[in-house]
Amino acid sequence: MNHLIPLDNLVAALGRLPGIGRRTAERMAMTLVQDRKGLMRLLSHALLEADDAVACCERCGGVTLAEENPCELCIKPRLDAQILCVVETPGDIMKIEQSGGFQGRYHALMGKLSPMQGTGAADLRVDKLLGRIADEGIREVLIALGTDVESDATASYLKEILTPRQVKVSRIAFGLPAGSAIEYSDASTLSRAISGRQEMG
Amino acid sequence: MNHLIPLDNLVAALGRLPGIGRRTAERMAMTLVQDRKGLMRLLSHALLEADDAVACCERCGGVTLAEENPCELCIKPRLDAQILCVVETPGDIMKIEQSGGFQGRYHALMGKLSPMQGTGAADLRVDKLLGRIADEGIREVLIALGTDVESDATASYLKEILTPRQVKVSRIAFGLPAGSAIEYSDASTLSRAISGRQEMG
Repeated sequence: MNHLIPLDNLVAALGRLPGIGRRTAERMAMTLVQDRKGLMRLLSHALLEADDAVACCERCGGVTLAEENPCELCIKPRLDAQILCVVETPGDIMKIEQSGGFQGRYHALMGKLSPMQGTGAADLRVDKLLGRIADEGIREVLIALGTDVESDATASYLKEILTPRQVKVSRIAFGLPAGSAIEYSDASTLSRAISGRQEMG
Repeated sequence: MNHLIPLDNLVAALGRLPGIGRRTAERMAMTLVQDRKGLMRLLSHALLEADDAVACCERCGGVTLAEENPCELCIKPRLDAQILCVVETPGDIMKIEQSGGFQGRYHALMGKLSPMQGTGAADLRVDKLLGRIADEGIREVLIALGTDVESDATASYLKEILTPRQVKVSRIAFGLPAGSAIEYSDASTLSRAISGRQEMG
């Protein structure tokens, strides 16, 4: 089907979505072509609209409306506005905000240190982070990164550059997830939970 | 994040793609928002272009360019133009055509009989199929449907309505897939392969 170039282009574009391989992209494209409820136009419109209306906050990096920049989370009064929570992606900000467990400000690095993928400190929003600590009178930086090697390296790096700046550096706790039991936990989770044990009040 | 309606709309539209649940749609939307290489506009454009340029052939139901209708496969001389291969979807036509194993014409039903999903004979392109058998002097109808219950029911139904029309009705063979071995075949495949055994020449 060499002559169906618009279809090939659509498959290629869909294939650039995260987790979508060529086969899935082909299946999606075929569904879209066969659809009679205007799904192609709906999706195209939603993409254009989002592209116009949604942006990343220039301060925290989180997702916001283009006309609200800096975003609501950066502007509105927050109980713990002197605590800055450092995350990897804008999506992480949403997750933590939805959890309701944090009342401070956010800062998305837009990545983590990864020699394998060629991501160095200059590719992350570290300068902005340092600027904000001074400008906003931040007293504590809470590092909310995952447990993989790259997250650990990024956390160590941040700890190192933040230490001279008279700011407390903390990292979210690792341990048993809510609703879990010792019986179902892996060794790595258990040892992290033990080394991170907290004295009972 | 109730105020990010364009993002919610995008998640909803992506969630209508086949095999994409809410979580995956959210992840895709976040990737698109963070992307700085114009992926949203590229995808939007590819969708609009495909929507304008690609259509289903009014004769066989296969995918074609809007300006080539009926499609190339329906128009061009074919070695076995008197054999009509009946499939479920336009994608099936592509798959069989890519296999190079068939030189006749195609006809996509756009579904199969499914009481569960409320798909009856009137929802399939059966009238068109009967018309084509007469118009194009078809001598054999080759049913290329799968092995599930609905495909079997659809095949039986077609056999029944085609029998009075003096046309040979065949169905693709079921058996061991290429490269497979008895050892790795399931019972159902083996019994189909045995009942469908062919005399060696």
